[in-house]
Amino acid sequence: MIIIGEKINGTRKAVAQAIRDRDAAFIKDLAKSQAEAGSSYLDVNAGTAPEREPDDMAWLVTTIQEVCDTPLCLDSANPAALRAGLELVTHPPMINSVSGEKPRIEGVLPLALEFKTNLILLALDDETGIPNSSEGRMKIVDRLVGLSKDGGLLESQLFVDPLVTAISTGTENAMITYDTIRSVREKYPECHITSGLSNISFGMPLRPLINQTFMAMCVQVGMDSAILNPNDRNLRAVLLASEMLMGKDRFCQNFSRAVRSGKIGDPPQK
Amino acid sequence: MIIIGEKINGTRKAVAQAIRDRDAAFIKDLAKSQAEAGSSYLDVNAGTAPEREPDDMAWLVTTIQEVCDTPLCLDSANPAALRAGLELVTHPPMINSVSGEKPRIEGVLPLALEFKTNLILLALDDETGIPNSSEGRMKIVDRLVGLSKDGGLLESQLFVDPLVTAISTGTENAMITYDTIRSVREKYPECHITSGLSNISFGMPLRPLINQTFMAMCVQVGMDSAILNPNDRNLRAVLLASEMLMGKDRFCQNFSRAVRSGKIGDPPQK
Repeated sequence: MIIIGEKINGTRKAVAQAIRDRDAAFIKDLAKSQAEAGSSYLDVNAGTAPEREPDDMAWLVTTIQEVCDTPLCLDSANPAALRAGLELVTHPPMINSVSGEKPRIEGVLPLALEFKTNLILLALDDETGIPNSSEGRMKIVDRLVGLSKDGGLLESQLFVDPLVTAISTGTENAMITYDTIRSVREKYPECHITSGLSNISFGMPLRPLINQTFMAMCVQVGMDSAILNPNDRNLRAVLLASEMLMGKDRFCQNFSRAVRSGKIGDPPQK
Repeated sequence: MIIIGEKINGTRKAVAQAIRDRDAAFIKDLAKSQAEAGSSYLDVNAGTAPEREPDDMAWLVTTIQEVCDTPLCLDSANPAALRAGLELVTHPPMINSVSGEKPRIEGVLPLALEFKTNLILLALDDETGIPNSSEGRMKIVDRLVGLSKDGGLLESQLFVDPLVTAISTGTENAMITYDTIRSVREKYPECHITSGLSNISFGMPLRPLINQTFMAMCVQVGMDSAILNPNDRNLRAVLLASEMLMGKDRFCQNFSRAVRSGKIGDPPQK
């Protein structure tokens, strides 16, 4: 499972404050704790005004790389901010994200092609927003995968986000996500499939339980990556159990090791 | 989701004691609490020596029916005990279970056909025990579904148990169960699919978490029934979330109602 740690995000109040104050210690702690929890990438979203964002992105990238080797997932719609980050990264990065929206295709996709990055593809466009069917989402995915491959990216560099909409707003919403995941898995066997899953439970009670159950179901149908809080012990436990229950944990070694080392299960006694 | 409450089972020490002592209050409590928790059937297993079992089964059935209307799932390999129960039940019962084993085919199946009961079919036989592939299990299922239908049962009266073996003894064991569930769902669309799921986590730490994750995955691939402890609040919550996330809970009504009434989530304050 390719975990993209979501916590360095300037739309979160404490992170925004740390960016304004150039509080490197705060950002480094977030980076280290997410890396230690098993993140394959750390999402980096400055979330600031366009004119400040390139500087903020550069500062974040430099600051994070002083304490950890985890590749970064540069999260912005602003080409200048992305370029500032891309010029500083020391490990093969990911860009979050291109969609079928014109500014993304024209502004973000060329950067991914130029720097040959991993790339998240969102199944939405300006015409329909998020299509309310897997067929609609696949049309956009087909186009984005085509453009990316034509531009020289490998299928294995692409992370398709099938998109998740709240179950409280549509009884079939989870099913649309599963169908999209299955279609991507079948049509593009080398593509990764990733998503932030917590939208599913928006407006509902018992959100963590709904999110965990949905995670297991998405892994069942072929998702192999997720954008999440890697320090959520329960979610991490469900992820490890999900992989084990999909035949991807030989002799249950990863799961058992995580329990023994206190990464999941009852936290170690201090 | 068709829940078969598992708690009235004479292989559990306290239940065995209650059966010996004819402690009706104890059995009635077990019946009521499982019925109130939403069981569609209550499993009834006397678990006693063959010569005592018919009397014990009859006493259990009578005792339970004094306090609840939930149909019973008569759980025995002993034809005399099953007949004793079948002659007393007041609601359409289920028999647990027929397998490909000769004594079950010869002793139990005829009773299911005679009384036209619902029937659990186990994917094992005397030749191979539990086959280590979904193909092997489906061969047995095919035979049992055929015999049942030829004998006059409807496909919708059949509950196929795909069988679950411990993930700690085989990395692919969960996958074999999913494949069997998918095959049954495809080949026999009217059949129900049920199982006791907790074997999956035998020998592992964090068993409840593994069981919950496995439950979500089995529902994802088509399971519509489970044999479990209906008083396990977490498991019930995962079940309700799973149904909701499979598009089977219109407007999230069942899930929301269960939270509001305190059936799942934080227990109501006393």
